Amino acid sequence: MSADLVAQSPKAAIGQHLLADLYGIAPALLRDAPALAAVLRNAAEAAGAHLLASHFHSFGTDDGVTGVVLLAESHISIHTWPEFGFAAADIFMCGRSHPARALAVLVAALAPLRQEVSTAARGVRPGC
Amino acid sequence: MSADLVAQSPKAAIGQHLLADLYGIAPALLRDAPALAAVLRNAAEAAGAHLLASHFHSFGTDDGVTGVVLLAESHISIHTWPEFGFAAADIFMCGRSHPARALAVLVAALAPLRQEVSTAARGVRPGC
Repeated sequence: MSADLVAQSPKAAIGQHLLADLYGIAPALLRDAPALAAVLRNAAEAAGAHLLASHFHSFGTDDGVTGVVLLAESHISIHTWPEFGFAAADIFMCGRSHPARALAVLVAALAPLRQEVSTAARGVRPGC
Repeated sequence: MSADLVAQSPKAAIGQHLLADLYGIAPALLRDAPALAAVLRNAAEAAGAHLLASHFHSFGTDDGVTGVVLLAESHISIHTWPEFGFAAADIFMCGRSHPARALAVLVAALAPLRQEVSTAARGVRPGC
């Protein structure tokens, strides 16, 4: 392939990273670490990703939760602020998995009144 | 306060999320799960954050590592591709911690030849 053609090729990212700010969620759900762990595991499965480990921490019965599922394809995390009805999630996946499907599961389960989602391409493969 | 003044007030974010794409790292370091775990713990400490849990997974002696430190202030994660000399890190912190100090520790320890860092403000406090 000529240098010109290489230069014109679209860059191939190593992974996609979705940042989702989710507002207007029922506070009780944002305090429920086991429920949130199940949501993130379901999200990973829907994306076609493979679970390596998970850890969810509750800050107290009236407080939020911070948790992560570590994946062969990277991770999904969630951090919640029930006092604001707010959750910050991120979905980072490489390979053949489908982060948008994971996001759809999160949104269906948490039912936010409003969401702001951005996507970042992470890493450029050498030669691309 | 008038509506005009409210509209002019800077929005207060709940957290800051740094995404760091780090290129040109020594591949041996990108395969070393215990070393990377120590780097992320040091980064969290430098930021003034408090460790809740950590998990690091090696995909094999010739392969990369995926890992996370879960913090009272959110998380730091790293995913590595030694075949590309590449690491994707993210640092998400709320409260009074200092994510830029964590990034400085990561960069000093990994010594990438090139870095691309972006910062996202995560969440807007109600009333701001």
